[in-house]
Amino acid sequence: MTLTFRPYDLQLRHVFTIANFSRTTTPVVLTEITYDGVTGYGEASLPPYLGETQASVMEFLKKIDLSRFATPFALDDILEYVDKTAENNTAAKASVDIALHDLTGKIMGQPWCNIWGLDKEKAPSTTFTIGIDTREKIIEKTKEAAPLYNLLKVKLGRDNDKEIIETIRTVTDQPIAIDANQGWTDRQQALDMIFWLKERGVVMIEQPMSKHNPDDHAWITERSPLPVFADESFQRLPDVARLKGAFHGINIKLMKCTGMREAWKILTVARALNMKVMIGCMTETSCAISAASQLSPATDFADLDGNLLISNDLFAGTTVTNGKLTLTDLPGIGAKKTKNEQ
Amino acid sequence: MTLTFRPYDLQLRHVFTIANFSRTTTPVVLTEITYDGVTGYGEASLPPYLGETQASVMEFLKKIDLSRFATPFALDDILEYVDKTAENNTAAKASVDIALHDLTGKIMGQPWCNIWGLDKEKAPSTTFTIGIDTREKIIEKTKEAAPLYNLLKVKLGRDNDKEIIETIRTVTDQPIAIDANQGWTDRQQALDMIFWLKERGVVMIEQPMSKHNPDDHAWITERSPLPVFADESFQRLPDVARLKGAFHGINIKLMKCTGMREAWKILTVARALNMKVMIGCMTETSCAISAASQLSPATDFADLDGNLLISNDLFAGTTVTNGKLTLTDLPGIGAKKTKNEQ
Repeated sequence: MTLTFRPYDLQLRHVFTIANFSRTTTPVVLTEITYDGVTGYGEASLPPYLGETQASVMEFLKKIDLSRFATPFALDDILEYVDKTAENNTAAKASVDIALHDLTGKIMGQPWCNIWGLDKEKAPSTTFTIGIDTREKIIEKTKEAAPLYNLLKVKLGRDNDKEIIETIRTVTDQPIAIDANQGWTDRQQALDMIFWLKERGVVMIEQPMSKHNPDDHAWITERSPLPVFADESFQRLPDVARLKGAFHGINIKLMKCTGMREAWKILTVARALNMKVMIGCMTETSCAISAASQLSPATDFADLDGNLLISNDLFAGTTVTNGKLTLTDLPGIGAKKTKNEQ
Repeated sequence: MTLTFRPYDLQLRHVFTIANFSRTTTPVVLTEITYDGVTGYGEASLPPYLGETQASVMEFLKKIDLSRFATPFALDDILEYVDKTAENNTAAKASVDIALHDLTGKIMGQPWCNIWGLDKEKAPSTTFTIGIDTREKIIEKTKEAAPLYNLLKVKLGRDNDKEIIETIRTVTDQPIAIDANQGWTDRQQALDMIFWLKERGVVMIEQPMSKHNPDDHAWITERSPLPVFADESFQRLPDVARLKGAFHGINIKLMKCTGMREAWKILTVARALNMKVMIGCMTETSCAISAASQLSPATDFADLDGNLLISNDLFAGTTVTNGKLTLTDLPGIGAKKTKNEQ
């Protein structure tokens, strides 16, 4: 088994703004693992606020020696070894995990949704994010997006939250998912806002307050008329049981949880604890998005629009049809490489 | 997809005695699911104390219509449908689940330990049960078993528990696993017995007291110098979180938990809750034993000797080599049918 990797810069179609900052590119590292003539593809997406860089990912991947394993099917051993190679580096770890899943799925001739026993026809609609912008730009973006998607996503957590929602509501009555990105600071005001949002067709809320406020989140979750999901508060498998009670659900992202294997375990544990599950993403090519989409038939919400936001995708895989995630019949992660890096 | 099934009676090599009764045969129902020219094999084992019979299993299986599903890979949907067909009937449900795993594994060309990402070389030793008998018979059985196995299992819970252990200790110092089969009635006496057993090389205890005594089990678990496993107290996935704290671990049996899919979920949830896991069995052919053994590399203890206790096995699969479970490279459940029913 050989692992190769190289950096690549994703070009964003629009300036991307969340609560704290804006940017026009996202750096990624693309991986390939080859075994017995079959190649699996993986990806680490590295939005700057998560702390990993192309340099740190490549430094990490240089330490990984897959030649010590006889078969790519020993996922448990391989991924434990990868995980123990260094702390953190979760996107770098995911880039190995995704490539191994692509590789083993290709050897088995099935996409992972099949291997996991899921029905790809049950993949949900994806949310599509309306970026924070001027009133005119928000109206323009909403007019573009509303006919193509079934669920819009809006990132709130500034001082003009109500204004943004009211602006969107001048265009469409479509349901909205909110990501507050830890932006609210008072739990009673957060709860009041959630009630206000519910009246305006919002269907779920992500991360209302700081991840350092578990008690406030438990207080909100107990009273909220909408399901409350942990995003920044949630990272990996051991967090699931700890968050039971503090949130209704969790947002699984491959780049934060080290990849598909741990994502599947997280989903299994969350369901056993009667928690809701959504699957999210970073700005990514169709490689990592297709990988994440394999899990989506088992989730309550999917937020897998990361590949739709870039202009230089190198893969073709899961697409969006009438707003719904549409998985291919391709084996592995369900994507194929269509272009090479320039 | 077509499902066929027929009854079969397993002949026991020795009279089988547990805390409450004895018997010389175990009824089973063998299943086959065929799709696209590939056949998967399954089995329902029906020890009388669990309440299912060959008649009840066949009655249940007659209701199952797999023709409504386009592909055997839709395990989530198919097994949810099977589970909802009627309450209980867990062995009947497992016979469908095992056949579907055998079928899909064969289509993918891999045994399920590989599909689950486990290393079959990590399969543990299996315990081998020394049946309760006269002192002379126990000595004879122990002399036979000790050279072949690495961990003996003894079912206690009667008034001669210490005598049985002392008898075995005249033959061998090999480690012993205890199944008390709910046989102890006073928690302080149970705890005293566990300390006594630890001094004599016992390494784990199953189900010290009645399944109706969760508080007593929690009391024992808190104080026990040996890991305490739930057997009768544990059945299916929703029980795992409930038993956290009351036991150190759980005993997963395919016939009780409806099969391999739920077994894998149970294992995942138990590990996330830092609980120990063992995999057990009924008296079964090498069909169901091989299926259960696919999970064994991820467990702390395996008690998969059910096929060794019968004289008319119809399958060849997982064997025991130097006491250790040895999985084949065959795809699916890792077994093949070698004889037809007489």
